[in-house]
Amino acid sequence: MVKRGSGSGVGEGPNMQAFVKAERGPGGEIRTVPEPRPAEDEVRVALRASSICGTDVHIWEWNAWAESRIGRTPMIFGHELSGEVVEVGRRVTTLAVGDHVSAETHIADGTCYQCRNGKMHICANVQVLGVDRDGVFAEYSVLPAVNAWRNDPKLDPALAAIQEPLGNAVHALLPEDNIEDLAGRDVLVTGAGPIGLLAIAVARTLGARRVFATEVNPLRIALAKRMGADRVIDPRGEEGAAVKTILEETEGRGVDVVVEMSGHPSALTLGFEALTPGGRVSLLGLFDRPATLDVDASLIFKAARVHGIFGRRMFTTWFQVRGLLEKPEFRAKMGEIITHRVPIHDLPKAMELIESQQAAKVSLEPRW
Amino acid sequence: MVKRGSGSGVGEGPNMQAFVKAERGPGGEIRTVPEPRPAEDEVRVALRASSICGTDVHIWEWNAWAESRIGRTPMIFGHELSGEVVEVGRRVTTLAVGDHVSAETHIADGTCYQCRNGKMHICANVQVLGVDRDGVFAEYSVLPAVNAWRNDPKLDPALAAIQEPLGNAVHALLPEDNIEDLAGRDVLVTGAGPIGLLAIAVARTLGARRVFATEVNPLRIALAKRMGADRVIDPRGEEGAAVKTILEETEGRGVDVVVEMSGHPSALTLGFEALTPGGRVSLLGLFDRPATLDVDASLIFKAARVHGIFGRRMFTTWFQVRGLLEKPEFRAKMGEIITHRVPIHDLPKAMELIESQQAAKVSLEPRW
Amino acid sequence: MVKRGSGSGVGEGPNMQAFVKAERGPGGEIRTVPEPRPAEDEVRVALRASSICGTDVHIWEWNAWAESRIGRTPMIFGHELSGEVVEVGRRVTTLAVGDHVSAETHIADGTCYQCRNGKMHICANVQVLGVDRDGVFAEYSVLPAVNAWRNDPKLDPALAAIQEPLGNAVHALLPEDNIEDLAGRDVLVTGAGPIGLLAIAVARTLGARRVFATEVNPLRIALAKRMGADRVIDPRGEEGAAVKTILEETEGRGVDVVVEMSGHPSALTLGFEALTPGGRVSLLGLFDRPATLDVDASLIFKAARVHGIFGRRMFTTWFQVRGLLEKPEFRAKMGEIITHRVPIHDLPKAMELIESQQAAKVSLEPRW
Amino acid sequence: MVKRGSGSGVGEGPNMQAFVKAERGPGGEIRTVPEPRPAEDEVRVALRASSICGTDVHIWEWNAWAESRIGRTPMIFGHELSGEVVEVGRRVTTLAVGDHVSAETHIADGTCYQCRNGKMHICANVQVLGVDRDGVFAEYSVLPAVNAWRNDPKLDPALAAIQEPLGNAVHALLPEDNIEDLAGRDVLVTGAGPIGLLAIAVARTLGARRVFATEVNPLRIALAKRMGADRVIDPRGEEGAAVKTILEETEGRGVDVVVEMSGHPSALTLGFEALTPGGRVSLLGLFDRPATLDVDASLIFKAARVHGIFGRRMFTTWFQVRGLLEKPEFRAKMGEIITHRVPIHDLPKAMELIESQQAAKVSLEPRW
Repeated sequence: MVKRGSGSGVGEGPNMQAFVKAERGPGGEIRTVPEPRPAEDEVRVALRASSICGTDVHIWEWNAWAESRIGRTPMIFGHELSGEVVEVGRRVTTLAVGDHVSAETHIADGTCYQCRNGKMHICANVQVLGVDRDGVFAEYSVLPAVNAWRNDPKLDPALAAIQEPLGNAVHALLPEDNIEDLAGRDVLVTGAGPIGLLAIAVARTLGARRVFATEVNPLRIALAKRMGADRVIDPRGEEGAAVKTILEETEGRGVDVVVEMSGHPSALTLGFEALTPGGRVSLLGLFDRPATLDVDASLIFKAARVHGIFGRRMFTTWFQVRGLLEKPEFRAKMGEIITHRVPIHDLPKAMELIESQQAAKVSLEPRW
Repeated sequence: MVKRGSGSGVGEGPNMQAFVKAERGPGGEIRTVPEPRPAEDEVRVALRASSICGTDVHIWEWNAWAESRIGRTPMIFGHELSGEVVEVGRRVTTLAVGDHVSAETHIADGTCYQCRNGKMHICANVQVLGVDRDGVFAEYSVLPAVNAWRNDPKLDPALAAIQEPLGNAVHALLPEDNIEDLAGRDVLVTGAGPIGLLAIAVARTLGARRVFATEVNPLRIALAKRMGADRVIDPRGEEGAAVKTILEETEGRGVDVVVEMSGHPSALTLGFEALTPGGRVSLLGLFDRPATLDVDASLIFKAARVHGIFGRRMFTTWFQVRGLLEKPEFRAKMGEIITHRVPIHDLPKAMELIESQQAAKVSLEPRW
Repeated sequence: MVKRGSGSGVGEGPNMQAFVKAERGPGGEIRTVPEPRPAEDEVRVALRASSICGTDVHIWEWNAWAESRIGRTPMIFGHELSGEVVEVGRRVTTLAVGDHVSAETHIADGTCYQCRNGKMHICANVQVLGVDRDGVFAEYSVLPAVNAWRNDPKLDPALAAIQEPLGNAVHALLPEDNIEDLAGRDVLVTGAGPIGLLAIAVARTLGARRVFATEVNPLRIALAKRMGADRVIDPRGEEGAAVKTILEETEGRGVDVVVEMSGHPSALTLGFEALTPGGRVSLLGLFDRPATLDVDASLIFKAARVHGIFGRRMFTTWFQVRGLLEKPEFRAKMGEIITHRVPIHDLPKAMELIESQQAAKVSLEPRW
Repeated sequence: MVKRGSGSGVGEGPNMQAFVKAERGPGGEIRTVPEPRPAEDEVRVALRASSICGTDVHIWEWNAWAESRIGRTPMIFGHELSGEVVEVGRRVTTLAVGDHVSAETHIADGTCYQCRNGKMHICANVQVLGVDRDGVFAEYSVLPAVNAWRNDPKLDPALAAIQEPLGNAVHALLPEDNIEDLAGRDVLVTGAGPIGLLAIAVARTLGARRVFATEVNPLRIALAKRMGADRVIDPRGEEGAAVKTILEETEGRGVDVVVEMSGHPSALTLGFEALTPGGRVSLLGLFDRPATLDVDASLIFKAARVHGIFGRRMFTTWFQVRGLLEKPEFRAKMGEIITHRVPIHDLPKAMELIESQQAAKVSLEPRW
């Protein structure tokens, strides 16, 4: 039986199919489990589409992070969601059965220091869907009503589900209220994995001048160009060549904004070297181990500003994402990032596609 | 003889043709005057293109503002400039003969309180080209080297000249470092004169969601749509109808950003009514007389933020403008805003086109 | 019987004393009413101290605003609260019986556009304590747990209660995240009523250079000086004299920040004239009728920024207020602003003191 | 003979005394050298007081940085200046003989990308007084008029000279326009050397709630307390003890702002551990070698913002500094930081006092 996180009532109702991390080790399996029931301020959502995040891959592979972070198994994982509300808790007034929704996957307590200072996205007591409580790789899932984001019913469910990582990309590019330096400015995205690709498309749509990317995988290089990167550089070339190229194409100045999406220490170094003095760097890709940095040259003499990026501003980025998705050209790009659409029963195969970097974003359809 | 403002050396050299405000009254005329010589930190520029600003119209018509503001005549007016450097002062190191340049028309002293706090664009001792000292409607003009903005030589001179008002539009949309709320947000531009049209195009290019405009002139309405306005509303309809439309198309919220470009008191009222609480308003259009405002409802209960817009941030907006002009689609729009290209000897006819609202932006070619 | 606003459960329990607006007209009276019971996410609080806000005076006097804004009578009014939690709803986890709390009086829905964009203080569906639902001039009151701010039990209850208007003053001085221009800068507070006095003390404590105030009432003038104003100017003198004084004492520049607390149109004019170009103005005092403003000179040519101020940022300002109140010198000033401490049964007399401007802030003790 | 940096004319006039780095190695000596003459946009200043910066110590000791950075010897070093204008260049209009001035020591070109975007303090072609051109440890020095900051003649010359490092401290605490989070917030200063001590005093004066410091030297610990630190922690205690103390005294949250002034890698680690999620860190102390950082835990999961601090915002911080120095209590603290006032001919002894950490700030009097 699947244990659910605090706050979710458990019902004695009918059963459903769900992808479950059954054991504390690699892999996962489809199981028949009880349908969840919403608490009084929650909604129950029927899955229309999901997609696979790097976090899901870590849980699937059961890396060191998963071992230390996941509290209990069996657990339903997955968190990128497009669904239809099928049941609402007694106190829910803002949603109705039939609404199409996506999920903000960070469940904030609303009362900690961070929440009370406009930073719910880094709530001190955050509960993450599919990590701290049962997720969405299931016929049904429950989430607090306040975390359900209502979608235009006409929006492609696969696109609706990737609004969550798209929010990460937007947040990395616009980390605070006080950022306007994309307009006509130069941007470097290091690492063109799914969120890096999203960031390239967003930077382009928000009026950046030149958008550079670094990437080694041919599929991602091709996609980065289609997202609008002016130049995609393989960073494995001659030492200093990538930075030299970027400096040459920015009149010797360097870029104004770096968005680090790779988690490679060499990308960190490259990013700071390519940054114009007074520029800013957003760090989203996890490094997994301590990194060594020339703080004097990279940060102090450069008067750089660095933003650690975690989650998405709630719910500022959701409005920004919604606005972007209303643009047909932008939607078309999003459709290209979803390189594969597979039935959820093929999740193991989908994981392989991602691990071997044959896929960018993989969308999952609720076929069991 | 033409008197020049402080800072401009006057030489005994050859003569040139210039459009001169000869008398303190309406109109102007072409005269032969001595060529100006640059001071040691100035450059002399040969005209490649100019264009007509509303300020030039006021000087031409000699309205109350012109009477009170213009210090002396005869004076060469005009300030939107695209030209080629033909002579550099002794201390100028950043420009060379042959460079293509545009002019930041606000000459700041660099030492006043505003300049020393990052606000050169509102220098307490500003000298405006074509207002406080001789302008650019002439075969040659001189300006401080620091006010000359070097252009890509391949840029159409007519577009190069309108970078200056384009900077006004960008500054109105991005008045400070701390503004990022165009991304995916809704914008209303009240008044689709030349700068309003530029603002519509800029908002579109910087990722705004819906862009609304109000306008009554059919030519401008058509252009506003071509610039990318989703909806252009004639504000003269039934009372409240315009606001009602905007609220309906923004899920009842109102727009996040209003850019006031008309100088009409009714547009001010409409703008605040259409604004979402917590939104912001940029005021650029001059009202010419005191306006009456329901401060409680418009500003306080709405928790609105209002920015008075004067000039362009120096030189932040120039970099933003340059970045925008590198986009082919944006350049194409700029080309459409320039509805007429006429020889400068037809300046009187050009003024008529503008006064009768048959033209948006009129570009002037150096044919005497 | 007293009707309570939505969200408050009504019990059949014991009775209590409360100050009630019984009729839709001037005045009020003490009545015996049922004790309120908290809903499951609310707390019940026993009054330790309250104080009188201008809003309470409007309700007492039953001015036009009160007639149009107050939905139903009888209603318990008052909202500035210091109390002790005596009962907690079933779902409340962050507060316990015995906690000392104050009230954030704006009850936000948490789901509207403003709430979801970090602007809960201007919630589209706000419910105000003592205006839209029963207030705190009573032995007991109920409020949502999230609106209860836990205090240091050693804090003087009278000071704990004025944290709410102190938050208004802080918010007026620091209206957004992007404001740092108090440090070493010059400030003008127009109007030294209670919140104006608080603003003077806050500006002083946050490192402003010169703090100017305008005021006509002798008691307030004296208090303004004690709060730390360098100069308090009677604005009724010779036309332009006040502005001239301010310019002279700021090296001709004008002040960097104006905080308008009076609601007088002449103060609005004076404030903009005394403002340095590029400065900012916060508007908190209500004008009650449309005001006429020279938008060109005041806003556009000055490149001014204006912030409409409503409520307090939730809960950023509460943390700021708490930090200020930990400073003994600041607490001593707050004690001086409370010119009178009276039993609540003397509320009519307290209202007279305020209306005749013999009092600054009046604190109420729970003696019936 | 002393070579002077570009921009300074060299005259054939009378001689003066100056402290000169004569050889590329440790030490320095007083020499008789020609008096410098100002270029046409410069002023010549007679020394009234100077003081010793860490940079001067590096030049004195001739460390690796000095060897790589100093272009030529002999050179007059020193840059913290209080002086009287004795001669003005032909084009200087804003200063007159007899004015009392201090020096902004970063001479910016005004035309590079950084200067044109409001970041003169990180000019791409910066020339530093006493590093790239002759400095102020001399009877006379010359500097561009725009770099001369006019002082109140009544200001103690020793305080006037330390405005420059005081500007560093202010800039570290208020690194950008968008920072207001000192008001009522908690601050940690790691390292209570001269600039750390200044930062403690500034944080206190700008309304911070708790100010923590880490330091090991007894003299500095005592001074840190006198500057207003609530608690000064010796970081060499039990591992984690310092962070534990800070968390305990901030209700478990950690501090909102860290200002790193020590250049010790362990302080970097401590600072990030003591930071509340969403807080910010300013880095001013140089590390001299690459530092290793747990980027995931310190930056990304903490959603931290980091500002590299170089120089002072020109001239925003100078206005802030001036405003602070008008407060008698703050001036008194500044007087305490100057632990020694010695004749400049005792510079070798002063260097010893600093190297052995027996002094905080040492002021130099023009006695040769």
